[in-house]
Order: sequence, then C-alpha cells, then structure tokens
Amino acid sequence: MTSDFYRLTATEVLQKTTAGDLTVQDYATSLLQRIKARDEAVQAWAYLDAEYVMEQAKALDALPSAERGPLHGVAIAVKDVIFTKDMPTQFNSPVYTGHAPKVDAGSIMILRKSGALILGKTCTTEFAATTVGPKTKNPHDSSRTPGGSSSGSGAAIGDFQAPIGLGTQTGGSVIRPGSYNGIYAYKPTWNSVTREGQKIYALILDTLGFYARSVRDLELIADTFAIFDDVPAPIDFNVKGPKFAYLKTMVWPNVGSGTSNAMDQAVALLRAHGAEVEETFLPEELNDLPAWHATVLASEGRAAFLPEYTTAKDKISQQLIGHVENSDKITRKAQLEAFDKISAARPVVDEILSKYAAVLTPSVPDEAPLGIERTGSAAFCLIWTALHTPVVNVPGFQGENSMPIGISLVAPRYHDRHLLAVCQKVGEIFEAEGGWKSAV
Amino acid sequence: MTSDFYRLTATEVLQKTTAGDLTVQDYATSLLQRIKARDEAVQAWAYLDAEYVMEQAKALDALPSAERGPLHGVAIAVKDVIFTKDMPTQFNSPVYTGHAPKVDAGSIMILRKSGALILGKTCTTEFAATTVGPKTKNPHDSSRTPGGSSSGSGAAIGDFQAPIGLGTQTGGSVIRPGSYNGIYAYKPTWNSVTREGQKIYALILDTLGFYARSVRDLELIADTFAIFDDVPAPIDFNVKGPKFAYLKTMVWPNVGSGTSNAMDQAVALLRAHGAEVEETFLPEELNDLPAWHATVLASEGRAAFLPEYTTAKDKISQQLIGHVENSDKITRKAQLEAFDKISAARPVVDEILSKYAAVLTPSVPDEAPLGIERTGSAAFCLIWTALHTPVVNVPGFQGENSMPIGISLVAPRYHDRHLLAVCQKVGEIFEAEGGWKSAV
Repeated sequence: MTSDFYRLTATEVLQKTTAGDLTVQDYATSLLQRIKARDEAVQAWAYLDAEYVMEQAKALDALPSAERGPLHGVAIAVKDVIFTKDMPTQFNSPVYTGHAPKVDAGSIMILRKSGALILGKTCTTEFAATTVGPKTKNPHDSSRTPGGSSSGSGAAIGDFQAPIGLGTQTGGSVIRPGSYNGIYAYKPTWNSVTREGQKIYALILDTLGFYARSVRDLELIADTFAIFDDVPAPIDFNVKGPKFAYLKTMVWPNVGSGTSNAMDQAVALLRAHGAEVEETFLPEELNDLPAWHATVLASEGRAAFLPEYTTAKDKISQQLIGHVENSDKITRKAQLEAFDKISAARPVVDEILSKYAAVLTPSVPDEAPLGIERTGSAAFCLIWTALHTPVVNVPGFQGENSMPIGISLVAPRYHDRHLLAVCQKVGEIFEAEGGWKSAV
Repeated sequence: MTSDFYRLTATEVLQKTTAGDLTVQDYATSLLQRIKARDEAVQAWAYLDAEYVMEQAKALDALPSAERGPLHGVAIAVKDVIFTKDMPTQFNSPVYTGHAPKVDAGSIMILRKSGALILGKTCTTEFAATTVGPKTKNPHDSSRTPGGSSSGSGAAIGDFQAPIGLGTQTGGSVIRPGSYNGIYAYKPTWNSVTREGQKIYALILDTLGFYARSVRDLELIADTFAIFDDVPAPIDFNVKGPKFAYLKTMVWPNVGSGTSNAMDQAVALLRAHGAEVEETFLPEELNDLPAWHATVLASEGRAAFLPEYTTAKDKISQQLIGHVENSDKITRKAQLEAFDKISAARPVVDEILSKYAAVLTPSVPDEAPLGIERTGSAAFCLIWTALHTPVVNVPGFQGENSMPIGISLVAPRYHDRHLLAVCQKVGEIFEAEGGWKSAV
C-alpha cells in the first residue's frame, strides 16, 4: 500500500480523522513509508522508532471520539534538544550519547495531551548552539545544508516527512531552516511558550519555534499553546489597503542576490495586490544590536555550558569552551550594557513595527549554501531574537539555483495572532506568484 | 558513636578531610544521626535515603586524593524542584508524585563533579510557586514557619542537618527562609548560575540560590559556579571607612518591630565599627516595582504552568490555574510595560547601589510568623529579584520572640564577590553583637 497522506497538512489530517476518513495508523504508515523512502537522501532524524510510532498510532485510534484531543493524530517532529520521556534526547553531543531521561518537556506534555503523535527526534547542531551541521541534507538539493540549528525539523517538514516540527532559536535557528527548506517557520514572542525541558543556551534569547507547510497549521499550534493577542486577529485579513513596510536593517550588506531579488519581488507583489508598502528604518542608535546579541549570547553561554565544561570538557566544541572560559574577554560591564541596551530597544522597535500590518525583512542572506558542514548565516535573524518579536518565515521565492528563499514578516511582541492572520494572506500570494515550487 | 561533625561548615569539613582527620563516611554518619534525631521536629526532607548517602560517602572516600574535587565530601541539601538523576524530583505537587527522571540539573552536575555529597531533596511549596507551607517546621520554634518556598533547605541548614543548601527564588524564596532560620542566604546575580533542570516559574525572575552558615562557604560555592566580578573582591575588607547605606524601600510600611529594630541596630553597629552609613532612596518612579513584579510573575506563570494545567488541572492549586487562565486579566500591553519598566530600572538601581560598599535593606517584615500553613511575606525581596542584583541575608538579630532576623545586603549586578567579601566582615559583627544566638 502506498498513499500520499504524508503530504497532508496538520489541518487536513484533522479534517480527515474527524470525518472518519483516515485512521492515525494509516496516516502514520504513510509517513513512515515516506521517511523510509527519503531518509538516505535527507537524514533528518536523530531517533525514530517506527514500531513505537505505530504503537502510539494504534493507541490514538483506540481512543473514543470524546477523548480525542484537538491535535488527534497530528505527527510532530521534535528537535533533539527537547526532552521526550519515551525517546532519547542527545543534543548532538557525545556528552549525552544514549541520554534518555524519562521526562517530557512542557511543550511535549501539551502536545501529547492534545493527541499529537510524537514521531521522533530530529537532528540539531551541538546543543543547538553551533553552526557545524549534523548529517541532515537539504531535501531540495542534498548537496546543500538545510540550515540549522533546527536542521532535521526544517528538512523533515520541507520533505513531507511530518507536517509540524519543533525547533528552537537563539540566533536564527528556527527562521533560517524555514527559508532554506521552503516552509513556514514561526518564532513566537519570547517566553509566550514554555521552554521547560529544552536545553538552555541563552535564557533571554532562547525561543521554541514551529515549522509547518501552512499558516493554518501554525494557527492550530498557536491555539494549542494558548498564544493570544490583546485584540483578536482579523478573521479575513485583506492585503488591499493596509500599510506594510520593508526593512533592510543594519546587516543588509550581508544580502545576496537571491534575497535581494526576493525582497523586491515581495514588495512588488504586495503592491500589485493593493497594499501600500514603504521602506522603514531602525534608529541608528540600534546599529549595534548584532554586537549586543553576540555579547549576550557569549556571556549567557558562559553560565549555560559550565556543567558540560566541568564534567566533560573534552567532549564539547571549542566555541562552547570559549564561552565558559570567556575567551572574548567580555567584562560584566559590557555584558550588562548589551543586555540593558537590548532591553531598552524592545519597546522602541515595537513602536515602529506597530505602524504596519507587518514588516518585511530578510530571513537569510540567500538560498541555502552548498555543503552540509556549516548551517549558514543567522545575520538577519539575530536582532529579532534579541528583540523578542514574533517572526514568520513566508516561503515562495527562489534563488539562482532554484532553491527556496523566504521572507520574514515581523510584528510587535504579543501580536502573534495578528501576524499569523497577515501571513495567511501574504503567504497565498507569495506561494502562488513568488516563483518557487517544491519539487519534492 | 556520636560526634558533632554535623556542626562543621563546609570549609571546616574540607580542612578536616584534606588533612586526613575526617572521612566522608564519618561525616555522613554524623549528619544522618543529626537528621534522625531532629527529623520529627523539623521535617526538612522530601526525600532522603540514608543507605544511599552512605554508599556515596564510601565511594568518595575510595577516591585517590588526586581525583578528589574541590567540594570533596561537602554535603548538599537540594530543593525538590531541582533534578537529581538518582533521587525523585516531585515539586511538592501531586502531578509529579514518584517522578524520578534520570537527569541532573546543571547545578547538580557541577556539584557532583566537584565531589559534593548529594544528601537528599528538601521540602518546597508547590512548584516553588505558592506560599502554602509544606510539612517543614522552623528549627528554632516548631510552631513557626521556616519560610518558603525553599522551606526544607533553609530549615536543614539552620538545624545543622547539612552545611550547604540549594534554594530558588522568584519572589523571596531564598532570602526569606534565610532570615527565618538564622542563616546566610545568597541570591546571586540573575543567570550567573545555570538554571538548567530547575522548575520554571518566571524566566526573568527565577534564580538559583544558596544557604550556608558562613560566608566562606558561600565564597566556596561562588568559586564552584565560577561567579566572578570584573574587579577582584577585596581580600580583607575593612568596615572602618567605607560608606554604606540603608534603604527602607517603597514597601517599608510592611515592616514590623523586629526588622525595624534590626535595621536600627545594624546601622548603629556598622557606625560603631567605623563605617559611614547614610540613608538612600530609590527614585519615586520606581514605586511600582512590586506591582510590576506581580504582573511579570503572573504573566510568565501563564505560560509556565500551561503544561500542568493541560494535563492535570485538578491537581494544581488555584493560584496556578489563575495564572494560566489569566484571572487577573493582565493585558499583553500591561505585561510588556511591566517587563520593560523593570528592565529600564536595572541600570538605574545599579548606579545607586554602586556608590556604597553595600546597601542594607530588610529581608523580611519580621521574625518567622506562627503556624506552618503559610510561608510568610516576600514583600521586601521581590524588587531585588526583579532587579537581578545579588543579595545576601546576613543573620544576627532577633525579634520579640527571640526568633532570628537577618538583614539583606545588596550590591549592583555582577558585584557578587565584592558583596560576599563585605558580608564576611559585616556578618562577623552582626553575629557577634546583633544579639541572636542559635540554640539548636
């Protein structure tokens, strides 16, 4: 038996299972077949036990309708820095080979209770902290990186091996793989979703994020995690009329032709559909935001990796040793200045963003680079991680090698649902007219 | 055999074991005898396996000198919201009865590797989040609370059942039990110590803290966790000359006669020893700091307890249900305003604190109240948790019922070692002349 159930979005899976047109077991079988067929090329998984997946699927099918959760049977790919009580969590670190504490992260507790099917653990860079790629390859071109650090989740969702993926972002680890794999990636407002049971790099930056192939699926996840704005999002947002902005930011010199063209195209498409689009700018005083991010990252990493440094220094990478040993010689004064200046920037940037339906900005410099040794540049993502704003990567464009390129849409903190409603319509336009189509 | 090894500080234990005058097994035996004799009266422990303690002690004794860590044999009482791979972690919550994931918190990894003897888990309020007392009683008067939420760690160290205790503070959960139990309590600068593997309440507030009966012991712990200032702390701080300040803060109306007298006494003693002491003030614009703390606490708790709310709502307290359901109807706008205003206050308060050797401020309104149903008021601690500054409770004073009262000494962020050096001398004075002596 072969089927293409694996191509369904989470929302479509729920429609079918609710209507009685699909069992979780048939759905899981289809996904597992897809994974089997594609695993050699993509290698998204750090851990996947097909038999156990079917056991879970069977148990879900056996639940009476009244006991089924709002995510009944929706398959989830979990980045391997997030605890799962029934699967190992190894952080792509030899310190934690075979590490399998019987505890679920807060996010997994919620997903499991909602009826999700926890498929397996996806590849990450070491502790989601470095840019040294794991074994995972880009599903659209296996000679290229899928990005990182959420490499496996990005690739798995881009390759139709799961409809929903969990990632984490401290620099650009959710948004970058979103762009490289041609999928939607959603980094919610910082701390709007529990990070209990997820490896710490920098507390003030780390954010759980989500991958999907439709905005409706991201809204489903936002419902699951009770992410709500003060004002309900527009039910049927119309791009005709509202004002958008595009923002090149202080890191624009990093841009390549792929993203530069995609930005132009994105602006032109929105205008063609009746939106007003203007350029906006961040105040010059914020030009050092990337440097402040780097300072906070290194200095928070100093405390975060002391446990591994103390117990197994020979098994962690030089970058992390450098954090602990403070090899950049960051003073406490400099650390606090960076921390405080980022804090002061947040309401300033919220104010600028609040003037627009959403602000368009690059997700990445260009399409996914060749080679899987490195996971690419997070230059365009860093500042939004530090600023705590919600960001959605919207796919639809392509680079000169026909690899996908997405554009980030950004909104003020805790305007997540508004942003998703906007992305729903913007995504329809970009996907239909941006030029890139997935061939996998 | 009885011995009073249990009365030793960690520093004294290390001197004796290093000199070959004490084995870890003899030391552990003494502690276990103390615990056995006093457990009915104090009830500090949520989990303690005497046989397993002796097993660990034996293994430590068997280590060749060259392999012994800097905390060789030092016994640690661990608050039961911190993961230990070999003991249950139950958060004083029926949701987690018997919960025993095989994982160490980051802090435990470091302590274990340093040769510490992990004694057991100490009682906490539910998730270290409520003020409903656990079974633990104040060692100095069993009709009174030991404070909370780090109830068991505070009581155990005050009762000589362990030399070092781990606590956590989101409101006043480290400092308050320090005062109530007549011991030193140290809340380091926020995020200077990893909080990996410790239950989350509010990310921007939660801080791991430490109990001891001497400042030297706290310095030992600060060494262990690599807490260093930009400028090395004075080796032999002299109170004669330097300028101190006392700060009543906007919550002074909460003060009782015990703390009010202790503050007067503390100021008088410092002056008598040659220090200059003046009153200082926070700017009026910061009068709402306690309200901002409450807003941030509730709104971060909203995300933090969604996992337990989703999976076991009937087993969590109304306070936590209220956070998740946002029963205070805190808007996202109000949440962000509180978050941003606290952020903006941090450098302002650092600047004020930096003018002094240390600033004296109340730890608690008064001595430990009667009854163990509630753990007392955190009114005086809240703002320092929000401001991320290091705080040390220095014991030495007493209330009208001869119960201990401590005074908080505060310094700017990342001036922890400076503060400890100051507390070393100030503590000598307060302990010698403040009037309170432990009778346990």
